[in-house]
Amino acid sequence: MKTYSDCIPCLAKQAIRLSRMVGLTTSKEEQVLREVLTTLSRTPYHYPPPYLGREVYRTIKGVSGIYDPYEGKKRLINERIAHLLPRIKLEIEEGDDPFNTALRFAIAGNAIDFGTERKIDFEKELKEAGEKPFVRDESKELKKAIERANTILYLGDNAGETFLDKLFISQFPAGKKVYYGVRGAPIINDATKKDAEVAGISEVAEIVENGSDAPGTILDDCSVEFRDLFDTVDIVIAKGQGNYETLSEVKRDNVFFLLMVKCPVIANDIGCPLGGMVVAKKG
Amino acid sequence: MKTYSDCIPCLAKQAIRLSRMVGLTTSKEEQVLREVLTTLSRTPYHYPPPYLGREVYRTIKGVSGIYDPYEGKKRLINERIAHLLPRIKLEIEEGDDPFNTALRFAIAGNAIDFGTERKIDFEKELKEAGEKPFVRDESKELKKAIERANTILYLGDNAGETFLDKLFISQFPAGKKVYYGVRGAPIINDATKKDAEVAGISEVAEIVENGSDAPGTILDDCSVEFRDLFDTVDIVIAKGQGNYETLSEVKRDNVFFLLMVKCPVIANDIGCPLGGMVVAKKG
Repeated sequence: MKTYSDCIPCLAKQAIRLSRMVGLTTSKEEQVLREVLTTLSRTPYHYPPPYLGREVYRTIKGVSGIYDPYEGKKRLINERIAHLLPRIKLEIEEGDDPFNTALRFAIAGNAIDFGTERKIDFEKELKEAGEKPFVRDESKELKKAIERANTILYLGDNAGETFLDKLFISQFPAGKKVYYGVRGAPIINDATKKDAEVAGISEVAEIVENGSDAPGTILDDCSVEFRDLFDTVDIVIAKGQGNYETLSEVKRDNVFFLLMVKCPVIANDIGCPLGGMVVAKKG
Repeated sequence: MKTYSDCIPCLAKQAIRLSRMVGLTTSKEEQVLREVLTTLSRTPYHYPPPYLGREVYRTIKGVSGIYDPYEGKKRLINERIAHLLPRIKLEIEEGDDPFNTALRFAIAGNAIDFGTERKIDFEKELKEAGEKPFVRDESKELKKAIERANTILYLGDNAGETFLDKLFISQFPAGKKVYYGVRGAPIINDATKKDAEVAGISEVAEIVENGSDAPGTILDDCSVEFRDLFDTVDIVIAKGQGNYETLSEVKRDNVFFLLMVKCPVIANDIGCPLGGMVVAKKG
């Protein structure tokens, strides 16, 4: 997906919000904003928004000297989700269709996002996940593709959400080789290797870092090993908006997007309403 | 008032909104946005926001070739307000305190604004104006200052609002020399000489153009004649946010601001809540 004009003010707002969160002085905040505006004025808009998002966060890291501004918040989220897990596990195990219920929770978990402007109550989303209809439902195709696959690359999105990804991956048939892709460095509240480990992902998948610090999967920015893996696995399951934005036009088959629609630009691009839970096969 | 960081994404959004309103192609819209971002990255933030607002609108005028994008909308607003006038006149004349009621309507009329992000229902505001308490009320001082003054410069803000300014000026004691300041060229929906004439301002005041195309009163950008007038009149009554932003720190006495608070940055700067009607003497 390309960067739309509407992404630009949103990225500038993120720069301001994050500058304040890390406690920059007003003059440092203005410095960040000026640098970000310069980048936004020069970068081609046919690149997906996470390309610009990466630059925004790099600028703030550079000015503030803080490597992982969301570290504390990610830790808190991990704790809160861990606390909710027993009830969710029970709901998955006791339901008629554990695969489908676990899938719903994995997508509802995508409500955890510190990058978007609208605040979503993820605890409410997790409560309602079992009942909420998908706004786009290609879950049967997804299930079949997983059954047929030997190798699966599952691209994680946010920290915390990882716990729910683990529950969903646990529902895959036995004998699959599953890789769980994470960002190569901290970016917003996206899951890193550490976050995946905290969630116990290594019990169900092999954690692979993508080598990039973008809030999505910009393949040109990923390591050679990661790109090889991406090209050769049987299916790719990509979680969240950032992965959708960067992979919606990628040239390979069997890519599934699982996400909650959290911004009007993506709602328009994907053709689904805001707040909707989406299971979509790349066209 | 200086430009705050939060003004920057808002100005970028205005550029996008206006580009679409005038029907620019996506590529022209992106050109406008890039030029605006460059300007926003370079302009000093100790200038008030209307300085940047002027640049945004100049860019769009340049790219689109449209001199007055809001001409049609201003005409419609003028017609709608003219239609509401008989009821408002009656309410002013039949009330206990015609000066105060007319003042309320003049401020409620400031709800007409196409530059702000939040849409305000100005017809609702005009309905409630008679009852709504001021969030800052220096109307007694204003009344006394008007009574004492021989010469008054009343700075208009938006087209349509001008009709209500006329009703308020009609309540000034006889024998005052009143000047009604308007922008020197079309900018957003701000009142120009033509809008003041349509509202019949010339029956109660002498219309003076300020020589500038900024959405406020940037004195350095105004004509010498206008600056002389500004410096020598007994009192200045400045309507609206743009005039507040550009004159809140001006070096002269007896300046009164009449406005509706329509943006959170100004709410914070002036210390009054959003949506509030303000009558404030410059401190």
